[in-house]
Amino acid sequence: MIDCQNILDNTYQKVLKMEHVGDVASYIPELSTVNPDQFGVCLITKNGEQFTCGDATVKFSIQSIAKVLSLSLVLSKIGDKLWERMDFEPSGTAFNSLVQLESENGIPRNPLINAGAIVMCDIICDLFDDPKTALLDYVREVSGIKDLQYATDIAASEQATGYRNYALANFIKSFENIHNTCNQVTDLYFHLCSIEMTCEQLAYTFGFLANQGKQIKTDMKVVKPAQAKRINAIMQTCGFYDEAGEFAFRVGLPGKSGVGGGMVAILPNAFSIAVWSPKLNKHGNSYRGMKFLEYFTDETQDTVF
Amino acid sequence: MIDCQNILDNTYQKVLKMEHVGDVASYIPELSTVNPDQFGVCLITKNGEQFTCGDATVKFSIQSIAKVLSLSLVLSKIGDKLWERMDFEPSGTAFNSLVQLESENGIPRNPLINAGAIVMCDIICDLFDDPKTALLDYVREVSGIKDLQYATDIAASEQATGYRNYALANFIKSFENIHNTCNQVTDLYFHLCSIEMTCEQLAYTFGFLANQGKQIKTDMKVVKPAQAKRINAIMQTCGFYDEAGEFAFRVGLPGKSGVGGGMVAILPNAFSIAVWSPKLNKHGNSYRGMKFLEYFTDETQDTVF
Amino acid sequence: MIDCQNILDNTYQKVLKMEHVGDVASYIPELSTVNPDQFGVCLITKNGEQFTCGDATVKFSIQSIAKVLSLSLVLSKIGDKLWERMDFEPSGTAFNSLVQLESENGIPRNPLINAGAIVMCDIICDLFDDPKTALLDYVREVSGIKDLQYATDIAASEQATGYRNYALANFIKSFENIHNTCNQVTDLYFHLCSIEMTCEQLAYTFGFLANQGKQIKTDMKVVKPAQAKRINAIMQTCGFYDEAGEFAFRVGLPGKSGVGGGMVAILPNAFSIAVWSPKLNKHGNSYRGMKFLEYFTDETQDTVF
Amino acid sequence: MIDCQNILDNTYQKVLKMEHVGDVASYIPELSTVNPDQFGVCLITKNGEQFTCGDATVKFSIQSIAKVLSLSLVLSKIGDKLWERMDFEPSGTAFNSLVQLESENGIPRNPLINAGAIVMCDIICDLFDDPKTALLDYVREVSGIKDLQYATDIAASEQATGYRNYALANFIKSFENIHNTCNQVTDLYFHLCSIEMTCEQLAYTFGFLANQGKQIKTDMKVVKPAQAKRINAIMQTCGFYDEAGEFAFRVGLPGKSGVGGGMVAILPNAFSIAVWSPKLNKHGNSYRGMKFLEYFTDETQDTVF
Repeated sequence: MIDCQNILDNTYQKVLKMEHVGDVASYIPELSTVNPDQFGVCLITKNGEQFTCGDATVKFSIQSIAKVLSLSLVLSKIGDKLWERMDFEPSGTAFNSLVQLESENGIPRNPLINAGAIVMCDIICDLFDDPKTALLDYVREVSGIKDLQYATDIAASEQATGYRNYALANFIKSFENIHNTCNQVTDLYFHLCSIEMTCEQLAYTFGFLANQGKQIKTDMKVVKPAQAKRINAIMQTCGFYDEAGEFAFRVGLPGKSGVGGGMVAILPNAFSIAVWSPKLNKHGNSYRGMKFLEYFTDETQDTVF
Repeated sequence: MIDCQNILDNTYQKVLKMEHVGDVASYIPELSTVNPDQFGVCLITKNGEQFTCGDATVKFSIQSIAKVLSLSLVLSKIGDKLWERMDFEPSGTAFNSLVQLESENGIPRNPLINAGAIVMCDIICDLFDDPKTALLDYVREVSGIKDLQYATDIAASEQATGYRNYALANFIKSFENIHNTCNQVTDLYFHLCSIEMTCEQLAYTFGFLANQGKQIKTDMKVVKPAQAKRINAIMQTCGFYDEAGEFAFRVGLPGKSGVGGGMVAILPNAFSIAVWSPKLNKHGNSYRGMKFLEYFTDETQDTVF
Repeated sequence: MIDCQNILDNTYQKVLKMEHVGDVASYIPELSTVNPDQFGVCLITKNGEQFTCGDATVKFSIQSIAKVLSLSLVLSKIGDKLWERMDFEPSGTAFNSLVQLESENGIPRNPLINAGAIVMCDIICDLFDDPKTALLDYVREVSGIKDLQYATDIAASEQATGYRNYALANFIKSFENIHNTCNQVTDLYFHLCSIEMTCEQLAYTFGFLANQGKQIKTDMKVVKPAQAKRINAIMQTCGFYDEAGEFAFRVGLPGKSGVGGGMVAILPNAFSIAVWSPKLNKHGNSYRGMKFLEYFTDETQDTVF
Repeated sequence: MIDCQNILDNTYQKVLKMEHVGDVASYIPELSTVNPDQFGVCLITKNGEQFTCGDATVKFSIQSIAKVLSLSLVLSKIGDKLWERMDFEPSGTAFNSLVQLESENGIPRNPLINAGAIVMCDIICDLFDDPKTALLDYVREVSGIKDLQYATDIAASEQATGYRNYALANFIKSFENIHNTCNQVTDLYFHLCSIEMTCEQLAYTFGFLANQGKQIKTDMKVVKPAQAKRINAIMQTCGFYDEAGEFAFRVGLPGKSGVGGGMVAILPNAFSIAVWSPKLNKHGNSYRGMKFLEYFTDETQDTVF
């Protein structure tokens, strides 16, 4: 990409000039108090070149984006056995819906909705004696952030108010698709979602999905090439809840969003890009993040389609 | 792709040796009487190189694959105004479901489910004085098949038994999202789905989606480059009904299937591939077609992800 | 009931003094042009005593109330074989919903929602060579109105705009639970709903449900005693769409409403009462009708509970 | 009712001679180990005459039947304010469905499905400092069973495995329609459902619903006459989950069932009848209980309709 920095800068300025609408996620205090005007971008190529704009070194809660990391961990450990516990179809519904679970007997539609991530946390609880430490070690290794910690205040907030997620866990357990106690599983889930990163760290962490499963610079093998492809496929069809089609249509890259206002997108064999802006559109995806990635790919025409 | 013919041949033989399960579509006589063991493949690159296997020159009913052609026609005529009449999100349900229409007030989830295609036919009825002739002329032009005709026996069969589609049309009209009479609209819809092509013709016809919107060889501009991308995005997220995630996961290419056993898939900027085998899996997609495309992309690793 | 006229009069005055809210049904012109302030009541005891208030001799379109008459006709002809074609459970949804039909394979929830009445019309088409005449003759006989006619202008209006009902008929036919053509069946259905009566006529017509299945005064046997009980049971649980619980709770009598603003209710072995006032509440039931019956049974304490 | 004992005996023998199908509830050990052939009946008139057949003095777990007692308690304390927290419409779905709660924002359809009973338990937790004791005292008073205890082993079993009910409580709390902790509320709920009675005790306990709200013999005022009517109306439309229409149709009395195989039914101003037989039909209602009440009311023709 010739002139990547220039295109990023122009796109950044273009989005900055737009009306800035939407609302910061308010359901836990830690998310609602963030400065809503922060806006950062980082793109990293598979060769390790890095480009940034704005608040690219400010930490934010990556929330549901972390579900992709639990997916890569579980796939690297048990491979396609994961699909005995869940499906990989788009849900066509909101991220925390219970409706489909009832008609589909506790089998989550895909790993990137809450129900699927909760079942993955159950699998991680089965795989490790100390699942919270094991998961943190894994994310440290993939991200290269040696001193990464869970944001325990955010996890505690979720624990105090996460009734919908407790409902999901208990509902799935009533179908016997959770093996550990609901408290163990949701505890891990809330900690997973509490992880914080900067745009720079997030873009780098997801670099393995732009590099055939090997991490950028270190060549650490995170997942097999075929698994990297499939994680990208799942992000493409399921990464944006009931806005998955919108994201494929407007942006055309596999990606994942979080209610903290973060977004990451992948051009396979080319680059990983992270965008962060806390105000969310009505589907729960970053308002500026969506606009940025739409304008950016309009400009570069670098999409998978 | 070095050695494309060789990879196609090997994949073809591999699928031929597998158990051949599934059932031919039986809901109209014309589809049920086809020889179920026919199996053809054609790949055409954006440069016009063509590779085939098996029954690539036998005509078959392309059925729902034709919905993509109505989409390209409508987009080329009215552009994004289309999205005032329907959405572009995966449905997560069967191709002919009425459930979502009720809660979503007659707005189809996307253009590639029956409801969406029916609304596109209504738009085509608005655009042209003689919509059946106009649509046929359009498909003739894009496909280069000068003497293409509707298979009127198939259209008549659908007309005699297509109660679910009449129900969809009337239901949508009750929400005022159909402007013409339901009979006019379903007549066009049944004719659209009746079109027959060979694998060679089908692969060529869809070539514009692998070539930035311009038809292969002729350079005829079918849709704008950005529209070609978006059609590919919609095929990726919505092209296989409730198996859209499966196809993205296993094949990793945007594509579309029909109950006649045909399938087409696109590697943008590279090639268009058509596969045909009449027996369908339980989701209504060609059993051998799915297997062929999965093994083929496993071999070439040429996917969008 | 001592002093029945007095209680009716007092209740009538009480309702007249209330704010008169709601909207007249507007979906067909013939219903929307009625004077919204008309308000009639007629109660007839099983011994033939009759009490009236207000506009009790003005004709109005009884609409869905007529579904009960198709039910009594079908039960008298084929008995419990009816239940091979439909169920008798409350639907918990709006009167014209298609959602349950999809998950329940074209088996209507009960005879008093549109889907069920359409299937009853299909049965009537099977039973008689000239079903429209046969149905009219039947209603004439039960009601004693020798010169009753279908209101063909209302039927024609429904025929021109009844897309939801056409959708229901075609949808049910796709499940093979309609045997005649959808046009034949909906034609009969629209004529059934077009019948007009006065409150006096309506109260009398339903008298057999307060009299063990025999018509008041004439002793004509309309249905068996056990069938009369069961029609009452079905009216109790299913007669008011998604307001069935509300009506049981507030009024406590089996009954049936129509979008023309009519309502009929039965105290078994005692009386039949008809109320009519065109403005509808948000559930599609007569606003004043509901209030009248609630206050009336509060006063008399004559409910089945 | 002349010859009540004779009719009861004949009906009892008739049901005994039928094939005895169905399954005992197995989801908690305490219910699954009961002798499935036990079968008891008790009818008590509002004047205090009592008639019994079979195992009328054997205790069994009344389970969901107890929800009616929580309803009478709550209505007697807060009256119609209850309806700010739930509705009184039939659900048309299984007793423990979560689907409607999602589209209806955490407002249970009625007090007799699990979701509604859980919200009533929340209200009882608000009303009393020691809700478990208060509820037990209330049931002792209404039933006249001075030494009634919760079956703590059954409550403990439910607590260990009641994931679906925990899911319901957390789901409702996510909509802020539960004020206390989910553990407090479900603890009370599981204790409520653990109550055991004999047929004699159960028939007597529900006597106030056949007697204008006053308990039989003692004349203790349990609820107001209008409230007794409305509890009966709610039992009629909502007392048998997705078999409510079936019960109205076949039996024609307001009533309530429990998965322990108990059933109670009311003929207002006449009698209360309890039947118990542990094997359940596919809807979760006592197989013999349904048959007994159907044949009994066929014989006596004593139904509300």
